[in-house]
Amino acid sequence: MYGKFITFEGTDGSGKTSIIKEVERYLKIQGYNVVTTREPGGVAISEQVRNVIHDVNNTEMDPLCEAFLYAASRRQHLVQKVMPLLKEGIIVICDRYVDSSLAYQGYARGIGIEKVKEINEYAIDGIYPDLTIFLDVSPKLGIERIMSNQKNHELNRLDKESINFHEKTHEGYLELVKMFPDRIKRVDGERSIKEVSFDCFQLIKGIL
Amino acid sequence: MYGKFITFEGTDGSGKTSIIKEVERYLKIQGYNVVTTREPGGVAISEQVRNVIHDVNNTEMDPLCEAFLYAASRRQHLVQKVMPLLKEGIIVICDRYVDSSLAYQGYARGIGIEKVKEINEYAIDGIYPDLTIFLDVSPKLGIERIMSNQKNHELNRLDKESINFHEKTHEGYLELVKMFPDRIKRVDGERSIKEVSFDCFQLIKGIL
Repeated sequence: MYGKFITFEGTDGSGKTSIIKEVERYLKIQGYNVVTTREPGGVAISEQVRNVIHDVNNTEMDPLCEAFLYAASRRQHLVQKVMPLLKEGIIVICDRYVDSSLAYQGYARGIGIEKVKEINEYAIDGIYPDLTIFLDVSPKLGIERIMSNQKNHELNRLDKESINFHEKTHEGYLELVKMFPDRIKRVDGERSIKEVSFDCFQLIKGIL
Repeated sequence: MYGKFITFEGTDGSGKTSIIKEVERYLKIQGYNVVTTREPGGVAISEQVRNVIHDVNNTEMDPLCEAFLYAASRRQHLVQKVMPLLKEGIIVICDRYVDSSLAYQGYARGIGIEKVKEINEYAIDGIYPDLTIFLDVSPKLGIERIMSNQKNHELNRLDKESINFHEKTHEGYLELVKMFPDRIKRVDGERSIKEVSFDCFQLIKGIL
């Protein structure tokens, strides 16, 4: 028995949090055993690393340092939380995983998708998701959503990047959809939560 | 004009801090432009990562997570502090660098020297030290020194490892001396600070 590993990806403000909540609800209603988690974070050590990454004072952070911190956080979370759950046969839904590093550090920061993929392969031991959903929202709309949602969400170091950076990340994701068409599915995220989460639910049902 | 990059390595309690202080003093008396620094740490972001690594509560840290955190800290310190100093022609003496990862995570934690070397090569851009001095002190004596020095030095997560771990690390260093005989020089660290630092000073003079 082995669970399924499903990840959600997208630029900031793409609605991952809301959609994951809805999808989790649908799956639970249907009797599935589901756990949702997030990156960077999910376990105590990874949350400590998350704080370093997100600290708005760390403006001088080198792109490769950032990539290593994400890999460290990912490794710990995978070993301590995701893998044990999968071994119990549970469906694990994770908000961000390796593709975030490929899009953000690899593509948008300019390290190169291939190089960041190589670094991450030391962290993930071949554990790629069974399904990755890319919630496609234009970076402009994403930023508008973040700004209007500021009460609930304090802006972190990555939120505060320029529009140009968010656009680059978005381009990076489109690149990844082309590179891994079997694993990564694009979903139009500019519709209502109900519509978007229904499409995601259908994709997930397809692999269960 | 390009400075020289000199690193000190050894198990805990090998006397790196005291010896580096002495060597720095000798070099400055002779008119050399020297800066000493340390790993993990040396710049603000790397010090934050150091705190995560050393936190005594982080007993569940995975070896590869630990290796990535050191690589992150190393990268930031190298880019933000070491490289700019070397470009100004300054002699940089660093307490620990890539060989610590090879001995601790690669050898003692069992990830493998080669694998940890590959990960670190993404972080260091080919910048290996001009000279590395391994202060050879038996792990037993090293631990005795740490224990008697507890007033000045709060024990961190790595200090608290078993004697077996410190012995493994020591074996790892001896392995590295064999692997990189041109770069890494072994100095008997079980003598007086004066004797040990004089030998180190001679080795450094040899590359200036």
